[in-house]
Amino acid sequence: MANSNKILQTNLQAALLAISLDRTAQTSLHSQLTEALRQLILSGQAVPGARLPASRQLAQDLSVSRQTTLTALDQLVAEGYLETRRGAGCFVARDLPHLSPPAPTTIRGPLAKGPTPLRPFHPGIPDMTLFPHAVWARHLDRAWRQPEPALLAPPDPLGWPPLRAAIAAHLRAWRGIDCAPGQVVITSGATETFELLSRALFTPGDRVLIEQPGFPPMRAALVQAGLIPQALPIGGAPPAEAKAAIVTPSRHYPLGTTMPLPRRLALLDWANRRGAWIVEDDYDSEFRYTGAPLPALMSLGASRTIYVGSFSKLLSPALRLGYMVLPPALLGLVSTAMSQTGPRASLVPQPALAAFMDSRAFATHLRRMRRVYADRQVALRTALLRDLPDHLVTQPDPSGMHLVCWPGPALSLTDTQVATQAATIGLTLRPLSAYWPDSTGPQGLVLGYAAFAPDAMNTAVRQLALLLQPGSAPVST
Amino acid sequence: MANSNKILQTNLQAALLAISLDRTAQTSLHSQLTEALRQLILSGQAVPGARLPASRQLAQDLSVSRQTTLTALDQLVAEGYLETRRGAGCFVARDLPHLSPPAPTTIRGPLAKGPTPLRPFHPGIPDMTLFPHAVWARHLDRAWRQPEPALLAPPDPLGWPPLRAAIAAHLRAWRGIDCAPGQVVITSGATETFELLSRALFTPGDRVLIEQPGFPPMRAALVQAGLIPQALPIGGAPPAEAKAAIVTPSRHYPLGTTMPLPRRLALLDWANRRGAWIVEDDYDSEFRYTGAPLPALMSLGASRTIYVGSFSKLLSPALRLGYMVLPPALLGLVSTAMSQTGPRASLVPQPALAAFMDSRAFATHLRRMRRVYADRQVALRTALLRDLPDHLVTQPDPSGMHLVCWPGPALSLTDTQVATQAATIGLTLRPLSAYWPDSTGPQGLVLGYAAFAPDAMNTAVRQLALLLQPGSAPVST
Repeated sequence: MANSNKILQTNLQAALLAISLDRTAQTSLHSQLTEALRQLILSGQAVPGARLPASRQLAQDLSVSRQTTLTALDQLVAEGYLETRRGAGCFVARDLPHLSPPAPTTIRGPLAKGPTPLRPFHPGIPDMTLFPHAVWARHLDRAWRQPEPALLAPPDPLGWPPLRAAIAAHLRAWRGIDCAPGQVVITSGATETFELLSRALFTPGDRVLIEQPGFPPMRAALVQAGLIPQALPIGGAPPAEAKAAIVTPSRHYPLGTTMPLPRRLALLDWANRRGAWIVEDDYDSEFRYTGAPLPALMSLGASRTIYVGSFSKLLSPALRLGYMVLPPALLGLVSTAMSQTGPRASLVPQPALAAFMDSRAFATHLRRMRRVYADRQVALRTALLRDLPDHLVTQPDPSGMHLVCWPGPALSLTDTQVATQAATIGLTLRPLSAYWPDSTGPQGLVLGYAAFAPDAMNTAVRQLALLLQPGSAPVST
Repeated sequence: MANSNKILQTNLQAALLAISLDRTAQTSLHSQLTEALRQLILSGQAVPGARLPASRQLAQDLSVSRQTTLTALDQLVAEGYLETRRGAGCFVARDLPHLSPPAPTTIRGPLAKGPTPLRPFHPGIPDMTLFPHAVWARHLDRAWRQPEPALLAPPDPLGWPPLRAAIAAHLRAWRGIDCAPGQVVITSGATETFELLSRALFTPGDRVLIEQPGFPPMRAALVQAGLIPQALPIGGAPPAEAKAAIVTPSRHYPLGTTMPLPRRLALLDWANRRGAWIVEDDYDSEFRYTGAPLPALMSLGASRTIYVGSFSKLLSPALRLGYMVLPPALLGLVSTAMSQTGPRASLVPQPALAAFMDSRAFATHLRRMRRVYADRQVALRTALLRDLPDHLVTQPDPSGMHLVCWPGPALSLTDTQVATQAATIGLTLRPLSAYWPDSTGPQGLVLGYAAFAPDAMNTAVRQLALLLQPGSAPVST
């Protein structure tokens, strides 16, 4: 035993002499020494009970000042790695456990996902380069340079009140919705909105009607929440036992159609009679190019309708701000659901966004983007008609940020094949069939145009034409 | 039938004449008329098939221009409320459903929760009035006035890369953690962090060890996620079957104690041997008033430790920014979990925070707050010693933002009774027993001091003294 202690002591002595300190490093010598000694203990080279040389000896061995070794040893005593015994010097603490080597890490997960580069024709993304950054930065600066006291108090979990008022005013002007600011709840986006609604309104096993086709992550989120998604029937009455219907009446996602008035009224009537809820997902209806925007479904019957909006398409996905408008009867339930997780929307952009929405610049920006996106839709249709007239067939769409392209007679590939091949040349095309469960839908392709300048789309369509009809050189500009 | 039609028609005529338009309103006359006609239809006063007067007649009846009535009627035809028949004029659309009156709303939920006013001694809140707002506003302005192109591209879901680098540098300097920026994941706060970890690492039914006492919402969140929370034993080895342990080693919540080194090493050893995870919740350890901060547990064994941090206590809860540091093996699983909901942290504060952290102002601010909070702890202890020496007993705490007060001999009420009575005079005291499951813990009170100026705390302690010993007038200042 004494012999094995001797060996350990000799090993420790050698290990100590092997410590190398970098005199040119930014880290102080005593920090380097502390870390080196800590590692000797943690690696088992210095075992519990082993005696360290005196600080003076250690200083001499390592060619450092005695103050350096004293500081390092004191720090390790404070941290519990070393203990001192009166007159006997410094020892590795004896109450440290015997350490096993780490078990091999068995996790074989997928690789981390980095950002998805923005390539034509990624749908649903606004053109961030046209955002009025200077105006926005000024609002941020003004809101936070000398923040009003309410901004420093504990925040209202339902959102910054002036932003809720600005949203109510915007919805009145643009969407025909008559609501009080107190009915508006700010969230970090549509996903959190739907999570809050799921927790507030439903219990696992409830049936929720969704549109078919529809936004695939919505179906997945409902399943994740323990709910049973069911297709909303196109004709006839919704099933009696469903608790809610989630719909995109202003502009069906992804088809872009508008829900006709009789169907809106029948849906409201069903909700009124059954005590069910209608969740109106109004994701991009401000971008309507011909005629006045159709009023929101909520403007027809506010007592059983929940309106869901977001600033991701309207302004910028970087904001991470969305909102919902609730019938007053639901405010308590949703605020209880929110108190379980706490609010997730950052307060930082909220006062700036409120001031921006209250200014003329906001409506000016929306009108400008409406013109830009309308022009881009024309540019995309023109390019498709020129280079792929027999492959992809489109109709002018009075609104939105993407076009649905139907297969023409010359297209010999499936929509999934087109999307896969387009991805190899750096183009993002979404197969329409994938918007149905199990990708069983009709053939087509969804092409976003809002984020792309006409030149970029011309080039991309030409590349796509070369891919789909490799024999014939496309006609130049 | 013809007769009943006649009556309906007469009723409609009367209702039309009752329409009143406000010529002084900001809304145009044709919009007002559109809305009024829409309401007549929705309310059932104008039934499907009813004929409207000709536009010229209607204009005369309402004393508006014919253009006004034409515009309103056209809009309602476009929306589907009206239909035209050649030569016969305008009718309420016949395909509108018969509408039932709304069912009474049966939801009887709790009332909406507004903001909780900040009153002494609310724990865990920084003093927002001391935040360097001018510096922060300048960083916001600089980041967004002419944003660099990467800020306009689709964001990295794991967070703005320069902020992740700034956090890695901060953790190296302040917490002894050696990690790459790519291991840092930005979230909207600790709640989202724990949700992501729950989805990435565990399956429902897994056992997760938590400290007792601990943060009550943590236990609730684990149960909500279908996991089984179990108390981490104080002595002896953790149970073999547990998948993870969530701990606050730098500063136990709420007791403020530091986990001793042998226990840290034993926990790491258990995780290594069992392939379990240690989640290190390091919620306020930057505020250490005496001696150097103890290195984080992650600095001892990074392969099975997940470090969880937040800016809510360090800087401001308004940011809604938190982060975690992951072993590289977990990055893929967590990024997959995040892709299910999308990132929730706003990008708006991230570049400003990165620049702030990279500047000297950040460390200066933290050091300043450390001095301020240390002084406030002394002020609170002094006030308690002066006014309630035999009721609430405290020890100086080398770190943190709150004090635990133990019951003195003169205190005749339970901690819950004290908290309830203090609430009636506008004071927030947390009973210590409530930090154990079912409030079964020892008696005590948790008093936060970080957010309150000494004067405010002096007044509050005097009020508390009057409450607890109503007979004896407290000694003045």
